[in-house]
Amino acid sequence: MPKLKLDISMSLDGYIAAPNQTLEHPLGDGGMRLHDWVFGLKSWREPHGMSGGESNADDEIVAESTRGIGAVIMGRKMFSGGDGPWARDPNADAWWGDDPPFHVPVFVLTHHEREPLVKDGGTTFTFVTDGIESALAQAQAAAGDGDISLAGGASVAQQYLGAGLVDQIQIHLAPVLLGGGVRLFDGSIPKPVELEAERVVASPAVTHLRFQVSR
Amino acid sequence: MPKLKLDISMSLDGYIAAPNQTLEHPLGDGGMRLHDWVFGLKSWREPHGMSGGESNADDEIVAESTRGIGAVIMGRKMFSGGDGPWARDPNADAWWGDDPPFHVPVFVLTHHEREPLVKDGGTTFTFVTDGIESALAQAQAAAGDGDISLAGGASVAQQYLGAGLVDQIQIHLAPVLLGGGVRLFDGSIPKPVELEAERVVASPAVTHLRFQVSR
Repeated sequence: MPKLKLDISMSLDGYIAAPNQTLEHPLGDGGMRLHDWVFGLKSWREPHGMSGGESNADDEIVAESTRGIGAVIMGRKMFSGGDGPWARDPNADAWWGDDPPFHVPVFVLTHHEREPLVKDGGTTFTFVTDGIESALAQAQAAAGDGDISLAGGASVAQQYLGAGLVDQIQIHLAPVLLGGGVRLFDGSIPKPVELEAERVVASPAVTHLRFQVSR
Repeated sequence: MPKLKLDISMSLDGYIAAPNQTLEHPLGDGGMRLHDWVFGLKSWREPHGMSGGESNADDEIVAESTRGIGAVIMGRKMFSGGDGPWARDPNADAWWGDDPPFHVPVFVLTHHEREPLVKDGGTTFTFVTDGIESALAQAQAAAGDGDISLAGGASVAQQYLGAGLVDQIQIHLAPVLLGGGVRLFDGSIPKPVELEAERVVASPAVTHLRFQVSR
């Protein structure tokens, strides 16, 4: 069975977006700070169509996180996010461009029914309107021998965590206290969940903490 | 100038006590889980009057955290905490016994005025009723060449963090999601604070994350 893996950047005080998050500014005011560590890395730049970049331990973590992924689940905001007029248009698809960085089937949780959207490079966006378990079942069927990446945003991650459906959590801990914003862990987990601390990789820019969720 | 060091156990979801925290049960229902990693360690058992215990990397972290400490600041709940009838008695001192594990001056933030309490082994409890800056000034004067340990609980830690007075944060991250309880970072930090990720030490039981607070 494919594993559901959550891979997300978080501040030490638990925020995955800064205050004043909107559909147009999904990371809030200053929330890009959480992702500073990633933008200069080769393994992030390449699938986003940019050349160059650093190859270091952080880079290997990013490369690893996309290897073996057979399907992606994301929320509506993440699908249509970013600055621009398309952010509030449920039929928009401009944000990810013609060749999105996923190269696998992507399942978008939304309330807007819509035909699947086929992009270049193997990315197909399928819109799921009947809930997180349906999206997971569809992703499992599509993932083949691969695992499933739970790409966010916060609401979708919280729903899967709260339902006990996440198998692996990797937190990319940014060395900053944001002081406010959108929490990853907002109280939607109904009872204590034991984790298995599996690996830590640390650099001055970020600490990667990987846990398996105990069953 | 002595540094103010916060050293605290926290769940991955940001809790330092479990739900239903009371004065009698300061860690809440199941919150002792956060400290599982420490009770078997030699460097924890020895100052608490117990023999034996493990010597490993976690043990060295605990030993290090008490070396070079010249004074301690704590809150009223931490001073009088634990199970027992004394928990609601402002004149109680039974919790820490005759020979408390601090062996340095301890400053207790409280609303109850009280004469200092001299214990065996170098621990003196001084009760501070005029706020966190006064307690810090008194601890600085008492610490000599040592640093100051901010021992908690949550409210006192939050007040010092919110006022920008903490120099070093070491989180002992327990591999568990508590799902609820008392947060360390509860929104009392008014604006983003950059940290310097200084060191990570990891074992299956706990991950020690040490940060310096940028000024």
